[in-house]
Amino acid sequence: RHTEQRQIWLLVDLDSDTSVPVFQVCEWHSPEQLKKLLDLELRDRGEPESEILQRCRDAIRYSVKTSHPRFFNQLYAGMEPYSMVASFIAEAVKTNLYTYEVAPVFTLMEDAVLRKMIKVIGWEEGGDGIFNPGGSLSNIYAVNLARYRYCPDFKEVGMFSAPRLVILTSQECHYSISKGAALMGIGTKNVYTVPTDERGRMIPSALEEKIKLAKSEGAVPFMVNATAGTTVLGAFDPIDEIADICEKHNLWLHVDACWGGAAIMSKKHKHLLKGIHRVDSVAWNPHKMLMASLQCSAFLVRDKTSLLQRCHSARASYLFQQDKFYDVSYDTGDKSVQCSRKPDAFKFWLMWKALGSRELEQRVDRALAMARYLAEEIKKREGFRLVLEPEFANVCFWYLPPSLRNLPESPELWKKLHTVAPVVKQRMMKTGSMMTGYQPLGEKANFFRMVVISPQVSRQDLDFVLDEIHNLGKDL
Amino acid sequence: RHTEQRQIWLLVDLDSDTSVPVFQVCEWHSPEQLKKLLDLELRDRGEPESEILQRCRDAIRYSVKTSHPRFFNQLYAGMEPYSMVASFIAEAVKTNLYTYEVAPVFTLMEDAVLRKMIKVIGWEEGGDGIFNPGGSLSNIYAVNLARYRYCPDFKEVGMFSAPRLVILTSQECHYSISKGAALMGIGTKNVYTVPTDERGRMIPSALEEKIKLAKSEGAVPFMVNATAGTTVLGAFDPIDEIADICEKHNLWLHVDACWGGAAIMSKKHKHLLKGIHRVDSVAWNPHKMLMASLQCSAFLVRDKTSLLQRCHSARASYLFQQDKFYDVSYDTGDKSVQCSRKPDAFKFWLMWKALGSRELEQRVDRALAMARYLAEEIKKREGFRLVLEPEFANVCFWYLPPSLRNLPESPELWKKLHTVAPVVKQRMMKTGSMMTGYQPLGEKANFFRMVVISPQVSRQDLDFVLDEIHNLGKDL
Ligand SMILES: Cc1ncc(COP(=O)(O)O)c(C=O)c1O
Ligand SMILES: Cc1ncc(COP(=O)(O)O)c(C=O)c1O
Repeated sequence: RHTEQRQIWLLVDLDSDTSVPVFQVCEWHSPEQLKKLLDLELRDRGEPESEILQRCRDAIRYSVKTSHPRFFNQLYAGMEPYSMVASFIAEAVKTNLYTYEVAPVFTLMEDAVLRKMIKVIGWEEGGDGIFNPGGSLSNIYAVNLARYRYCPDFKEVGMFSAPRLVILTSQECHYSISKGAALMGIGTKNVYTVPTDERGRMIPSALEEKIKLAKSEGAVPFMVNATAGTTVLGAFDPIDEIADICEKHNLWLHVDACWGGAAIMSKKHKHLLKGIHRVDSVAWNPHKMLMASLQCSAFLVRDKTSLLQRCHSARASYLFQQDKFYDVSYDTGDKSVQCSRKPDAFKFWLMWKALGSRELEQRVDRALAMARYLAEEIKKREGFRLVLEPEFANVCFWYLPPSLRNLPESPELWKKLHTVAPVVKQRMMKTGSMMTGYQPLGEKANFFRMVVISPQVSRQDLDFVLDEIHNLGKDL
Repeated sequence: RHTEQRQIWLLVDLDSDTSVPVFQVCEWHSPEQLKKLLDLELRDRGEPESEILQRCRDAIRYSVKTSHPRFFNQLYAGMEPYSMVASFIAEAVKTNLYTYEVAPVFTLMEDAVLRKMIKVIGWEEGGDGIFNPGGSLSNIYAVNLARYRYCPDFKEVGMFSAPRLVILTSQECHYSISKGAALMGIGTKNVYTVPTDERGRMIPSALEEKIKLAKSEGAVPFMVNATAGTTVLGAFDPIDEIADICEKHNLWLHVDACWGGAAIMSKKHKHLLKGIHRVDSVAWNPHKMLMASLQCSAFLVRDKTSLLQRCHSARASYLFQQDKFYDVSYDTGDKSVQCSRKPDAFKFWLMWKALGSRELEQRVDRALAMARYLAEEIKKREGFRLVLEPEFANVCFWYLPPSLRNLPESPELWKKLHTVAPVVKQRMMKTGSMMTGYQPLGEKANFFRMVVISPQVSRQDLDFVLDEIHNLGKDL
């Protein structure tokens, strides 16, 4: 008789290595230096456990501490302990989610989470969905479903005799839309970008013009991607007005809410997504603002006629046998373009169960309150200038070192300012005191983007951020 | 001054719940029953920790024990402890792999593992690659690169004025090829399936005929997918002969070695992949036979002119700034169609470091020796019949209950035999004594497929499997 492994445990004790400076967000080394520090070569002979343990310590030590309260470099940060426990369990039980027989628990949990998200979105008749390895794939699924609805034959015969298809999206949308268009044979040039207003939101009248333009060229617009929470500015495209246009022109409306979807959890902020109950599909990443472990991305679709499965299925007879003894509608694998698929939904299910919708709501409210605090501080401080008033969690701003503060507004000034953020970034990485991102945008010179996600971040941390940027850049 | 979380620990002690029957592979419940056992609903209020702990126990209890030595249901099984530790660390440090600045350690480790895999494959001039969430995506990358090499313009303009493109693959190939063709706008009907020989291997002359057929129809064949280790039969397409044909017709040759790639590690068995040093790209899943944690799938490409990056890049300025202070060729994110991407390579790197190539080789040799043992036992036993002599780890066989043993070979017999495996499968799931897959194949009635992967599996376990199948099915 077999007994299975009874205890699964892992203990990584950073204290035992006293040289680790635990207050740093990162310990910067160039690729060449780091290669020397980590002996990376794989050899014929293995290494003893003591050495492997040291390699684990090194991997942790030299990795960026994304859960550190001064890590603001991406649209994820902080540690949600329940979700992390769920991810450990998922790793330990080693489950692939294609059939109910091999993943009974996680199949049902995924179903429960999807239903709940659909309810929160407000699709009263229900819907369908699936978790994917990342929001980029969720957006790609949306394009595929929209295309399939437009013409199911493409699945079999391809697009070789199709009219030129056009996707419409704002110029501020995430790059996954054009990566997806390239992958799917639609082409990046057939992603028509719609101008945005001064706050980064798609201009509905401009959308309508672009639709007309495409039609006048003999092309076929088939879907609109609206972004709820753009990557850089945190802008929300006006879904309701866009939905009107999509209805009129019979276009699939997808909302990329990978970043901003969390706002739906908040009574105070859900107005940002007004109209979302009308759309055809939504991509929403709980691994961003809601802090589920990486990765956790849901694709949701309002269709209830198994469009998702019809679009993606291949009916492999070695996996999706129809002569099984249970209800095979629980075998969800054929809704996916993947075969192996991780039970990411569990990571969200467990934390939701532990925290309740209310605590999730409070986290969102807190993140947005912190953004507001940071924006007000920026307005008070000399040398800091907001790129725009934040309406969500993204706080975008320039830092002007004293040498630039009294220069007149001129292309000269902006050219100089453009070089400030990269140097400040370099210095912050080398001291390891904090991490935040910067980027140019259109005509705008390089600016910093701060997003506060983790409840471990305090107002003092935000004060520190502004002090530190000044300290690092004041001589420039 | 901040101190980071110092201890990361998880202890799941199954002993504390004495009702768990630890010898079962699974504890079967129908979806309806299981929904009642797991209170799945997500509510406004969270739950106390003690309840959450119970939910974790339940999630483990009702999950299939894929690391159990009698789990043979998929092409993965067993637990590789080093890889599991790596996956825990990766979850805990919560890293996304797009830029060196945010993932210094894992970027270099991915690079080291890819280089080593490329070396093992035998691409003497080197190559390029990336880890993906699953072999299906790795295969899709191959199709995309092949298409991009054929005509880079498609990336921008799509395929609307392209000639009809054709992919060639064997009829036994994995379904991800046709899922990919559908997603990519090529269409499932433009995947031409090449007949296989009696052992499930692509027939090179038939490949050449299909290429000619496509050309005669005015279509453009642009790639061949050869499978090294087919999903069901474990067949290896003859790469060398196929490479000759691809050279002659200037076709991209991809090898789907997701399952059979492990054989390269073995001096004794690498002949199965003879010719692989000549191909353009390879998909290889260390999460299958080599037992890396889920998921771990490498896509490897022989090109050294950054085809991978050119094909997939979108040059997002918020992530891949060109004014960074380090060598941005270490920012690998733009080689991917994903944005967030997990550091899956680490899970393979750490186990390879700990075990060495030699131990990996021994595991492959052992898995194939066990398959041989099982095949010989099947030949000895009454009522068991091999579908074919295994040349790899897949052992495919029918079980004939006594009532069918003396019937003459006839369609009648096969029709009855077809119903046996599903019933035996149902019974094994309900007792929880073991799990193995079954499927029909072409004209062949439902048969069992056994693959032995984990070194924890003994010959006694295999004897048990045959005894148990007989016990479960003898009355049929
Ligand atoms: C608006 C938006 N959509 C989609 C994505 C892609 O999500 P993922 O990184 O999970 O692929 C991002 C990533 O930052 C995003 O900001
Ligand atoms: C031959 C072959 N290729 C590709 C795959 C797909 O790999 P994944 O499940 O990681 O997507 C499989 C899965 O079993 C396979 O057997």
